[in-house]
Amino acid sequence: MEPACACGEQRATGRAAGLGLLAIVLCSSLLLNALLLAHHPFLSPSRLLGDGGSSSCGLSWALQAAREAEAVAAVGCSGHGQVFLDGIAGEDGRPGCECNACFGGPDCSLRVPNCTADADSGNPLFLEPYWRRHAAASAVVFSGWHRMSYVTTESFSFQSVELERQIRLLHTAVGNAVVDDKHVIFAAGSIQLINALVHALSPDVNAASPPARVVANAPYYQAYRVQTTMFDGREYRWGGATAQWTNASRNSTTDEGGFIEFVTSPNNPDTMLRKPALGGSTAVIFDHAYYWPHFTHIPSPADEDVMLFTISKPSGHAGSRFGWALIRDEKVAKRALKYVSDSIMGASRDTQLRMLGIVKAMLANLHSKDDIFAFGHDVMRTRWRKLNAVVSRSRRISLQKIPPHQYCTYFKRTREPSPAYAWVKCEREEDEDCQGALLKANIITRTGVFFEAGSRYTRISLLKSDDDFDVLMERLTDLVNAEKYEDAPGSRAM
Amino acid sequence: MEPACACGEQRATGRAAGLGLLAIVLCSSLLLNALLLAHHPFLSPSRLLGDGGSSSCGLSWALQAAREAEAVAAVGCSGHGQVFLDGIAGEDGRPGCECNACFGGPDCSLRVPNCTADADSGNPLFLEPYWRRHAAASAVVFSGWHRMSYVTTESFSFQSVELERQIRLLHTAVGNAVVDDKHVIFAAGSIQLINALVHALSPDVNAASPPARVVANAPYYQAYRVQTTMFDGREYRWGGATAQWTNASRNSTTDEGGFIEFVTSPNNPDTMLRKPALGGSTAVIFDHAYYWPHFTHIPSPADEDVMLFTISKPSGHAGSRFGWALIRDEKVAKRALKYVSDSIMGASRDTQLRMLGIVKAMLANLHSKDDIFAFGHDVMRTRWRKLNAVVSRSRRISLQKIPPHQYCTYFKRTREPSPAYAWVKCEREEDEDCQGALLKANIITRTGVFFEAGSRYTRISLLKSDDDFDVLMERLTDLVNAEKYEDAPGSRAM
Repeated sequence: MEPACACGEQRATGRAAGLGLLAIVLCSSLLLNALLLAHHPFLSPSRLLGDGGSSSCGLSWALQAAREAEAVAAVGCSGHGQVFLDGIAGEDGRPGCECNACFGGPDCSLRVPNCTADADSGNPLFLEPYWRRHAAASAVVFSGWHRMSYVTTESFSFQSVELERQIRLLHTAVGNAVVDDKHVIFAAGSIQLINALVHALSPDVNAASPPARVVANAPYYQAYRVQTTMFDGREYRWGGATAQWTNASRNSTTDEGGFIEFVTSPNNPDTMLRKPALGGSTAVIFDHAYYWPHFTHIPSPADEDVMLFTISKPSGHAGSRFGWALIRDEKVAKRALKYVSDSIMGASRDTQLRMLGIVKAMLANLHSKDDIFAFGHDVMRTRWRKLNAVVSRSRRISLQKIPPHQYCTYFKRTREPSPAYAWVKCEREEDEDCQGALLKANIITRTGVFFEAGSRYTRISLLKSDDDFDVLMERLTDLVNAEKYEDAPGSRAM
Repeated sequence: MEPACACGEQRATGRAAGLGLLAIVLCSSLLLNALLLAHHPFLSPSRLLGDGGSSSCGLSWALQAAREAEAVAAVGCSGHGQVFLDGIAGEDGRPGCECNACFGGPDCSLRVPNCTADADSGNPLFLEPYWRRHAAASAVVFSGWHRMSYVTTESFSFQSVELERQIRLLHTAVGNAVVDDKHVIFAAGSIQLINALVHALSPDVNAASPPARVVANAPYYQAYRVQTTMFDGREYRWGGATAQWTNASRNSTTDEGGFIEFVTSPNNPDTMLRKPALGGSTAVIFDHAYYWPHFTHIPSPADEDVMLFTISKPSGHAGSRFGWALIRDEKVAKRALKYVSDSIMGASRDTQLRMLGIVKAMLANLHSKDDIFAFGHDVMRTRWRKLNAVVSRSRRISLQKIPPHQYCTYFKRTREPSPAYAWVKCEREEDEDCQGALLKANIITRTGVFFEAGSRYTRISLLKSDDDFDVLMERLTDLVNAEKYEDAPGSRAM
């Protein structure tokens, strides 16, 4: 580039000394202008010519995608919604705000009046704020050619060796499961492992053995029943609640076929720590989806033969569809692995990469001020406190009883209850349909019928977003406040 | 910031006019420098203080992840391997090169002598170079809080509305399927849809109907048999090859139960376009995984009632585990959707976001010089040419016959063959075990027995990486060259 002026040719004659000095400084300064401009990421000619910023802050192909992600994340949506990269494109071709329930408008600023509270699904959005606070640690960039292969080269399997290692480290650091003598099997959420393990623990297809009975102790998570009856394999059969089998189980080695019992601990819906209901030669699948310190105290590491876990509850990434089983026996592990391989060829490698970053970020902050379990416990404990404060004034509905302080080996102290769900009982004789009674009060819950516990019970999910919980508390407060008027003298006559 | 000089105070008196003018320019220049320096991503105070580059090129939380991804992508591995973000961490804590088959060493520069060629699986790595050339368009950045929810807010489903829209656009632009009157069901690869559709087309669990017979015309893709026998549902049963049923199918409405026929077109392994073998009231599942212009000519858009597709074959992203079904009948679509929902709660939202970028990039380049199908056809046609050139000299092995030029509605011209697989027949009487014969020549293939076509046939995959194909051609050339010596007079006596 030709300099703006030929500084070298300046002659500092006496008369023009000041002028000359000034000119030299000016020239140097102008040169510096030129240099800085030429190399500025936004103002440089290359940028202005639109080369995609190949020289910007050392980034090339990832820059555009990074800018798009940050632009989308920067849209506030009034704190009651958010924009996603894959949201529906509006007229301008860009995704708009997706508002939380009970909020609307292009920027989610409009509150829907008398909105119905949805406390149905166990959607773990209470952890979303945690990841927004740890954005850099949990961000991940995919190249277009990342893990295109069916197999991960280094292991010739469908599982990331590094992710398995990090998951083992997480269990050990949290102290909620013994991993050393277990095989780790990935799947598309722990829900896929329900039938994978029923299959793995059932008699072989070619064996002449009678089908195994798949059972669970009511109230139980309905997915065990739904999946077992849907797949309807010849090697097993849904056997219903354990109650009817408690005696039969003792001679379960008869030609009537054995039992496969699902034990959910903490239990969904009532959040109690559980043990098997059947004894004898029953094969047991322990679903420990909620066995993490933000939902329950951890008395000791779980060490059962067959255990289920999912990322959706510890980290909140339900949409990623990633779960794993810890299995002691090699044969059972191989059958479960074959099931996942033959049915979906392993959990998405995209999800495996993303979860690697998530698990690493969780591990890096354990026992620090950024501990995800401390954050999660604080949120859930506060919600449980608020819920109890309101419901304790009610004679119409009651909640499950949880000991006020229990020692947690993870926090190394006693902790307050912080259950994922409230298991509600309607106390009034006329409220036989508890879910219906709450629905009249504009609160959507999950009926106890789903859990084979009868209609007098219903489940309230406490896992959802802050907005969801706030609306829930409003509707519940209205419901409880309404009681005193109903109970007031004369109100019956009205 | 205090300006370097108070330019406003300059007085342009007659005597100091030039001096003043010069000074003004100098001041402006110095100010510009100050401004540029203050906002320069590398030289700005914030950078020099090492704040992690929060102001770098406008990026904050995504910068670190973007740098890591580009650093990993920049490692060459001698062109015979690559580094992945989730590769096994070495002693320095960083992932190292994962070498292609037959290459080794820390940088994959070491060629393994007399290495066995692995032509077994249909791993679509031939498209990896395409995505490396289109890095910016196919990159995607995930925030830690992307789609944590089970449902996508805007649709209360497990499927991205935007991805479904782009997939419909792709089919229409390519002209390989009619989508307007079809429902689109996502799954964890088309492989999950095998049993999902068998389930959806079988009699209802509660119906007393006899089980449906699941069949396919040999040679057929073994996954249909493997999955149907593994899930072993009471509503269906594996019925084997269609040959034994061609008459029975006519009265398939008897109490013997109906048929569900898998028709793979182009077929895996022999790459022929297929029609159903059974007639009558047979329910047909058309597997169109390979019905894309880089593998076959497209005579017309497919418009069957039930069709399977997967991203792994058109884009090469096998590791992402993403496939979809196009289904005309609403009831069948609902049963298939319920199967995917109840078994895995939908395909990973992480993968759905990544695939959105991939499909958009494919669409943006159709019929341009960067057309992925033109690229893919060119690679596969070249491989088929090379393979034929060698095998045509052989009397020991032969390949399937494909018409040399067929009109393709996508390319709007006739095209040369570019099959995904070579379907090899061993011609010598003694080579009854064709896979074994090739294995002796250090070539791993998939025996025809898997495809219920007998051991005289075996499948060679042409989908793999350039390195894999090169090694395959070396081994095949050795095999064919060896023939003339074997056939030479006296060689038999040796």
